[in-house]
Amino acid sequence: MAESSKNRPLTRASVSEAHALIKPFIHLTPVVQCSTISSLASTPQSASTLPFSTSRPAHPKLNIFFKCENLQKVGAFKARGAFHALARLTEEELARGVITHSSGNHAQALALAARTKGVKAHIVMPSISTPSKIAATKGYGAEVVFSGSTAAEREAVVERIQKETGAVLVPPYDHPDIMLGQGTLALEFEEQVAEMCGQNETGSRGLDAVIAPAGGAGMLSGVAIALADNGVMVFGAEPEFEGADDIRRGLAADPPARIESVKTLTIADGLRTPVGIIPWTIVSDKKKIRGVFSVTEEQIKNAMRLLLERAKLFVEPSGAVGLAVALYNEEFRRIAEREGGEKGWNLGIVISGGNTTVEAIAKLFAVEKKEGERNAGIVGKDGKHVAENVAG
Amino acid sequence: MAESSKNRPLTRASVSEAHALIKPFIHLTPVVQCSTISSLASTPQSASTLPFSTSRPAHPKLNIFFKCENLQKVGAFKARGAFHALARLTEEELARGVITHSSGNHAQALALAARTKGVKAHIVMPSISTPSKIAATKGYGAEVVFSGSTAAEREAVVERIQKETGAVLVPPYDHPDIMLGQGTLALEFEEQVAEMCGQNETGSRGLDAVIAPAGGAGMLSGVAIALADNGVMVFGAEPEFEGADDIRRGLAADPPARIESVKTLTIADGLRTPVGIIPWTIVSDKKKIRGVFSVTEEQIKNAMRLLLERAKLFVEPSGAVGLAVALYNEEFRRIAEREGGEKGWNLGIVISGGNTTVEAIAKLFAVEKKEGERNAGIVGKDGKHVAENVAG
Repeated sequence: MAESSKNRPLTRASVSEAHALIKPFIHLTPVVQCSTISSLASTPQSASTLPFSTSRPAHPKLNIFFKCENLQKVGAFKARGAFHALARLTEEELARGVITHSSGNHAQALALAARTKGVKAHIVMPSISTPSKIAATKGYGAEVVFSGSTAAEREAVVERIQKETGAVLVPPYDHPDIMLGQGTLALEFEEQVAEMCGQNETGSRGLDAVIAPAGGAGMLSGVAIALADNGVMVFGAEPEFEGADDIRRGLAADPPARIESVKTLTIADGLRTPVGIIPWTIVSDKKKIRGVFSVTEEQIKNAMRLLLERAKLFVEPSGAVGLAVALYNEEFRRIAEREGGEKGWNLGIVISGGNTTVEAIAKLFAVEKKEGERNAGIVGKDGKHVAENVAG
Repeated sequence: MAESSKNRPLTRASVSEAHALIKPFIHLTPVVQCSTISSLASTPQSASTLPFSTSRPAHPKLNIFFKCENLQKVGAFKARGAFHALARLTEEELARGVITHSSGNHAQALALAARTKGVKAHIVMPSISTPSKIAATKGYGAEVVFSGSTAAEREAVVERIQKETGAVLVPPYDHPDIMLGQGTLALEFEEQVAEMCGQNETGSRGLDAVIAPAGGAGMLSGVAIALADNGVMVFGAEPEFEGADDIRRGLAADPPARIESVKTLTIADGLRTPVGIIPWTIVSDKKKIRGVFSVTEEQIKNAMRLLLERAKLFVEPSGAVGLAVALYNEEFRRIAEREGGEKGWNLGIVISGGNTTVEAIAKLFAVEKKEGERNAGIVGKDGKHVAENVAG
């Protein structure tokens, strides 16, 4: 991408500029609440379900708000970064077209943004990608080029096409314009929650904290750039399966260091990539990110079930990882209890995307425990909270 | 229920009165659009998939709006009727408590409304009901009383409790106050669509027509009472499986006659009941209801999949029946093409509820056709519409 972009300051003002540029092309996605879920999150976990002994499970008071990027164009926040990246290209660059390698939401986002601008998009995908994703990307008018499935094979194809066409590479997360674009959701979120709080009994205080899921961390870092200097605490959420929590582990190292490669097959497939180089400069900055916490596959599934069945939000597993941290990560919950105190926190959670299928859901939940036995971890002994079902 | 209620006029003005009474207790549920689905509905079905030969499949132009009662309290529109019924009881009646027999959404709706009013609710449920539904109803503070599963057994238990306690029966659909309560969603729908249309290119015209699913038809008749005199066409939608389309068949009889009993195990389990006596007086009135159309189980599943995967709306099968009619019923589509003409229709579809589980979805879709083969009925040969995925 344009080298000039690399010098754009990573500030809240830059996120605002990005927002002004992409507003006409994206959805202002809704913010919703689900009283059942806020009440579950404000109930201590049963001590017996925790993996360690504790005298008293944390008891935070969490009033949760969901930012529904599953309702964003292409079904994920990725549309924001793609539209912003294109808005920053020169006419000359646009004429050469754009290229990326991705088999996920970024591919569709870039394809849509390119079509909207009348620009040619080349998307390099492994030939083993699922037919529906190939069809979706082609459906946005992109030219899909197949490659082998290793990083080297993909990059060779990208390089060849760049040489042939001069197409500009738009990476999925490791670029300032992508990070700033994704961060725009935070500006909307902040304003929407402030408005909602002004109208009800919680007072006019807005967001106290936000949890966002992190893979390459383009979005998490964008959110932190937008909010941290404005007094909102930002937390990251990762799956822990097979080392997918590379940011948490990298921050825990002495000295902290970016982990460059991860091989995980977590069900949160949008979060399998390790953190990018530029996003790492933000997420490793203690003034920007208060902490990064991880959750198990089972916890992600439980959170996903609650979002589907209780909040009636259609989400992909990656989109449920933030809620899983709020519900199940005791370290996070202790911080929230201690700092939120009596009045508690207005906690924003980013629902990053909703691109899954009924077949995938069937596969995830088909061999689940029998009805009635589930949710045992979070529900009080009286079973009361399972029964609540007040959506919206 | 109070005999005086039986005389309340079934008019738009009565629906407005009901709305004023229940507004503080219910959610103003959102209205959403999904461009993918509107575009699919505006594409002719492939002639080869139709069960009859036709020279030209219908080609209506449908701009679809979804009224999301899956986001209503208790996850379904039933909260409206229950709150209205209770609002109409006298202090003396309320003191005696309320009773109903239901294992579905009406049970939870009445339990919630009763708890809100501080009134005792007895819910008679077959002892074979699923544990989660029993827990949910108890969770709202209702007293659950078990019965056998035949109608006679249930009614015997209701009668016994009524004799013991004097509790007032609140039926699920066959009562003016329930019908008027459910109809309140139509007033909101009308206003919300008018506002949305005022803001975009379709002009300031509001709803042209509404499709609502029908079981006992308390909601369909309420919607018709609210809208028909205001110039909005109202259509009913039924599953056809094992004769579940009792209204359509009853209207087709000569002379038209209400079918009193149906035994169907359609996947749209909220629509298994035959039409009620008072709702029938409305749905059989040609000035109120333009037509009632039915769809197959497969068509309901296809529509449900689109609502989940494309609109990202978490719906139960019953909630998808209205969309199934718009997408797949050629008789309806021919009317929409003929009467909508060049400018087409702004078509409202009521998403009645979202009370299902991931296990139920897994069961419904686990044995589906393989990815890539699906949606063959509605998608153009170029596969283009499958690929669109613009939510919200």
